[in-house]
Amino acid sequence: MLEAIFAPKSIAVIGASPDPTRLGHRVLKNIIDNGYQGAVFAVHPKAQAVLNRPTYSSILNIPEPVDLAVIVIPPQAVLAVVEECGKKGVKGLVVITAGFKEVGGAGKELERQLIALVAHYNMRMVGPNCLGIIDTTTHLNASFAALMPDPGQIAFMSQSGAICTAILDWSKSAEIGFSRFVSLGNKGDVDEVALLEEWGKDPENRVILAYLEGINDGPAFIRTARQVTKDTPVIAIKSGTTAAGTRAISSHTGSLAGSERAYEAAFNQSGIIRAQSMQELFDFALAFAYQPPLQGRRIAIVTNAGGPGIIATDAIERSGLTMAEFTAHTIAYLQEALPPTANVLNPIDVIGDAASDRYRVALKAALADPNVDAVLVLFTPQAGSEPEETANVIAELSADQLKPVLASYMGAVSLGPALTLLNKQRIPSYPFPERAVEALHAMANHYKRTQRIKGEYTTFEVDRDRVHHLFHEVRKAGRVELGEIEAREVMEAYGMRLPQSRLARSPDEAAAIAAEIGFPVVMKISSPDILHKSDIGGVKVGIADSTTARDTYELIEYRARKYSRDATIWGVLVQEQIRKGREVLVGVNRDPQFGPLVVFGLGGIYVEVLKDVAFRLAPLTRQEAAEQVRAIRTYALLKGVRGEPPADVAAAEEILLRVSQLVVDFPEIVEMDMNPLVVHNRGEGATVVDARIILQGG
Amino acid sequence: MLEAIFAPKSIAVIGASPDPTRLGHRVLKNIIDNGYQGAVFAVHPKAQAVLNRPTYSSILNIPEPVDLAVIVIPPQAVLAVVEECGKKGVKGLVVITAGFKEVGGAGKELERQLIALVAHYNMRMVGPNCLGIIDTTTHLNASFAALMPDPGQIAFMSQSGAICTAILDWSKSAEIGFSRFVSLGNKGDVDEVALLEEWGKDPENRVILAYLEGINDGPAFIRTARQVTKDTPVIAIKSGTTAAGTRAISSHTGSLAGSERAYEAAFNQSGIIRAQSMQELFDFALAFAYQPPLQGRRIAIVTNAGGPGIIATDAIERSGLTMAEFTAHTIAYLQEALPPTANVLNPIDVIGDAASDRYRVALKAALADPNVDAVLVLFTPQAGSEPEETANVIAELSADQLKPVLASYMGAVSLGPALTLLNKQRIPSYPFPERAVEALHAMANHYKRTQRIKGEYTTFEVDRDRVHHLFHEVRKAGRVELGEIEAREVMEAYGMRLPQSRLARSPDEAAAIAAEIGFPVVMKISSPDILHKSDIGGVKVGIADSTTARDTYELIEYRARKYSRDATIWGVLVQEQIRKGREVLVGVNRDPQFGPLVVFGLGGIYVEVLKDVAFRLAPLTRQEAAEQVRAIRTYALLKGVRGEPPADVAAAEEILLRVSQLVVDFPEIVEMDMNPLVVHNRGEGATVVDARIILQGG
Repeated sequence: MLEAIFAPKSIAVIGASPDPTRLGHRVLKNIIDNGYQGAVFAVHPKAQAVLNRPTYSSILNIPEPVDLAVIVIPPQAVLAVVEECGKKGVKGLVVITAGFKEVGGAGKELERQLIALVAHYNMRMVGPNCLGIIDTTTHLNASFAALMPDPGQIAFMSQSGAICTAILDWSKSAEIGFSRFVSLGNKGDVDEVALLEEWGKDPENRVILAYLEGINDGPAFIRTARQVTKDTPVIAIKSGTTAAGTRAISSHTGSLAGSERAYEAAFNQSGIIRAQSMQELFDFALAFAYQPPLQGRRIAIVTNAGGPGIIATDAIERSGLTMAEFTAHTIAYLQEALPPTANVLNPIDVIGDAASDRYRVALKAALADPNVDAVLVLFTPQAGSEPEETANVIAELSADQLKPVLASYMGAVSLGPALTLLNKQRIPSYPFPERAVEALHAMANHYKRTQRIKGEYTTFEVDRDRVHHLFHEVRKAGRVELGEIEAREVMEAYGMRLPQSRLARSPDEAAAIAAEIGFPVVMKISSPDILHKSDIGGVKVGIADSTTARDTYELIEYRARKYSRDATIWGVLVQEQIRKGREVLVGVNRDPQFGPLVVFGLGGIYVEVLKDVAFRLAPLTRQEAAEQVRAIRTYALLKGVRGEPPADVAAAEEILLRVSQLVVDFPEIVEMDMNPLVVHNRGEGATVVDARIILQGG
Repeated sequence: MLEAIFAPKSIAVIGASPDPTRLGHRVLKNIIDNGYQGAVFAVHPKAQAVLNRPTYSSILNIPEPVDLAVIVIPPQAVLAVVEECGKKGVKGLVVITAGFKEVGGAGKELERQLIALVAHYNMRMVGPNCLGIIDTTTHLNASFAALMPDPGQIAFMSQSGAICTAILDWSKSAEIGFSRFVSLGNKGDVDEVALLEEWGKDPENRVILAYLEGINDGPAFIRTARQVTKDTPVIAIKSGTTAAGTRAISSHTGSLAGSERAYEAAFNQSGIIRAQSMQELFDFALAFAYQPPLQGRRIAIVTNAGGPGIIATDAIERSGLTMAEFTAHTIAYLQEALPPTANVLNPIDVIGDAASDRYRVALKAALADPNVDAVLVLFTPQAGSEPEETANVIAELSADQLKPVLASYMGAVSLGPALTLLNKQRIPSYPFPERAVEALHAMANHYKRTQRIKGEYTTFEVDRDRVHHLFHEVRKAGRVELGEIEAREVMEAYGMRLPQSRLARSPDEAAAIAAEIGFPVVMKISSPDILHKSDIGGVKVGIADSTTARDTYELIEYRARKYSRDATIWGVLVQEQIRKGREVLVGVNRDPQFGPLVVFGLGGIYVEVLKDVAFRLAPLTRQEAAEQVRAIRTYALLKGVRGEPPADVAAAEEILLRVSQLVVDFPEIVEMDMNPLVVHNRGEGATVVDARIILQGG
């Protein structure tokens, strides 16, 4: 789909200046110098020739068809030129020119027009305001970058041009190669979603890296990433906080949520590996690009020194990976083949004077052991060491292996050629063992996620129409917040269990309803104008007989009036007093970027003081709901501690799924809280005690 | 004190072989080749000359005095040679020879004898089983390392020789210099404590780095480090878990504690910065070695690109540092001096086409701003950039500054000379901004700690003799665990408040005591043989009258008998039922390496499920006790949530200090739990409800 941009048959550089200091000149030179095989045309209004090739004053004058136009001209001239490109039948644009959205005001309007024009002619566009694009598979460098990256299997996109430049500069010395290298600029058309989709299809991209400052379309991003990450690891840095406006927050969930939480949930659910730093981005990239998937967590270490072995062991245990336990066969073999002073348990210590032969013995045995999922080879330069030979041994033994092999060659001055050898032979090597372990850890987590993401969304039979009608009525009445009875109705329509409950409009009616429901009951003021019922004494529990029910009605009504003379009072709600259970909070807050962010946590101080909550974005799969419930630190309290029976976790999960369905069905719900939802003992379900729903205003 | 080792007037290399492949030869060559100024003698039993200098068959034949002997001979010959060294009046030894403790068995015994001999002659010794020592201030390389480090102000010690080799190799290419570089080996005499003490005195060591696998003397380590870190930052990697035996653990505190927790507490309290990886060790070292202390947390950023600025801002906010807010003066100045498109708020963006002049303007203004504590300069190579010029500007402006300046030059191939310039001029530069921010974060934390560590230990007036006598009685009776009444007595002797309480030996006595104390009361079985009283129904609360007191006595007695026919039953304890408060756990577990490890946490599920506890090692300063209480996640619950009054935190702190005094006074206490200690509302103190004390067996 983006073929016209990454694999065009012909290119026009519009703004190809004869002045070598101009960007347009550099772009043309980059295209010519780096081995692009198609036709290249220079367009310039005045110049006769640039870099020894004739120029055209307009793209319309080029006699042959043009697939891709790279535009490097002043912003005010861009629209006219893009119009010409459209007429010429150009399919792809790379607009390097700056001066659009990023400068605000008129630039914003200019960009809007540019995007409209591109859409009108059915073209695709990278930019504006970018460094350009590079594709080493087609030898195309349509950028003004000072360097051409080495070919490789890492695809990289960045929203920052400077990051592109810096990474390119740094990667050349680290000998890291790329398949594609794209500066996204303002993302007027082609954005992270388009590239993910495109790159995910091509096995040449063994791993996709992204430096992102924002995401254009959150739900599309998740949908696409979920698909892509099944086959291709995607590693991203999300930097900066979203500028997307901050709505006034009135719900509990709202105060817990936030853009950072939404990104965390989005990356988690779509299987994206989030790098904590630029360093990690590339540390992980090498492991994924060079080595096969890590299908377990059991790591073997081969080392020629104790200290680094201990460091790596510590890092493995800290990260949640495990040290492999060798079979008796492996141990016996190693005892036979290595000198008596060697350590044959994990880490295998081949001892400081080891030449490459001992590494061969140890690595071979470790790779062959069925209890080993990956091998980390540590090397310190010592007397008798053979860094290059050992590198070749590692490469030879790990070739065509299904288990990843990573290395940490510790040192630098004496290791130069060995490091180059390792890199050439696709063995990721890290200067310190901890970084290798972090990469293994990322690989293990990614594999686990690829096994998980099946995207099975559950749908329950619900009464959608009833909710639709109700919302309509509420909005017709000029309200955005549902009253309690209305909120109950929504919950019921979506199959959630509520305490039996009816509205009483008089003391006598309260007594009658209570008798019918069965004592004890709970009584609550019912008014659209009173949000925090407890605070004004509008809730009473444990009402045990008819007389108290009558008295309570009057008391609550009196208090409500005292609180607000003008409040609409619908009456007093008489409710079944529900069985005890563990109180949890389930809520939803609509993130401006990603949509409904569902929160789960134990109620009371666990939420308020410990902020012990877990977020996921709706829609939720069954497995995601299960993971969400288990992601809180206090999950043990649901399982039951100190001899308590376990809570009905399955019921809590089902509620999360029903809520997910509700907020996906009704995008107008901007916030909702169920606080508390009481989760009863296993097999006894869960009951929604109190719920609030707030709809989009306007 | 270690002058004879690091600055000897003369050296003998014992085992200086003429064979260039032998370690003894390499050691001699390293001493001669690297500029050592004193006299150097070669000792070898048979050789005539080594490296063109005459050899002596024994150190005793050397006509001049010898300060330092470096020993590189087979292990079985070492004792005799050391004896000769002693007789010769040698003051320092570096024993490179391996084959001692590390091989176990006979080697262990050999090392014991070696240490005794060294002590007998009042010598000091590094090793055995080490790589040797290097001191660049005296140009002494008494090691068989293949490389001589550059001079610098970082002192490095390592328990692993391979780590020494790897670091040396790596540091040469990173152009990192060292003042001292020591391979500790088996630490037969000179250990981490001796080096800390020695190095802390010399301002040539601007920062001390340590790679440690274990610590010889925990309390001495803390004492020394506490002193040293006031002036000299110490950064350490502690790797591996301690081998120091695992006692059977019977207390609650014991199950929470562990060697890792003890190290964490020891490093924290002694002001040592713990690096999480080898990378961090050196990232931090450069910042401390090159730059002045960071006296606050407000960071300014100067950058020539937006992306890296955002990355650094994120990292700053994540780490708990803050982005500096410039004064109006600074902003006005920057607006005047920079182009209109520049961003003059923090981060200052001098824009991609900035030459060094704009960096000069921005850095100068940031350094001059009183709201700025440190500046981070970000540089990406772009058209028009002047990497070297900019490096010089940074160096010039930061010279003689009281505020640290760190850099992140992002890139590599085009930055080589600039990176060398930065390093030469003592500007730490990191390839990615996050690593620079981590270094700033470590600097800020270190400064805060240097301000804190005053080591004021509080002592309360207590009745030490009473406890001494009591412990004597308990041990005489062949017990290690105190009964409840005994534990109460200890608490009382150390000034802790307990509920009124007396032992009843009959139902009638129970009723009488209860009446005297005042109802309601709590009654508990009193028996040295019943540990978990509640589990057998041996505790009843809320006893409201005399009849119930009598009944309860019989019930509890019956249950205790049923549980164990042979248990010694002292009677039933009748206790004042204390005012409500927040229940906390205070306990002590004796760490084999560091001594009494004090734990604090909120009782019940907070400890049991959330493991929300904080550890410190006794003795505690007032400030450490205060920090310990505030270190738990649930501290907010002590401060009071949901309108509760605050708890008496000061009382909890005082209890920690009294407990600290108790366990320091009585090293025979191996474990104790106060669970619960009830902390009442502010001003009302705290009451120890239940306490257990276990003494050292044997």
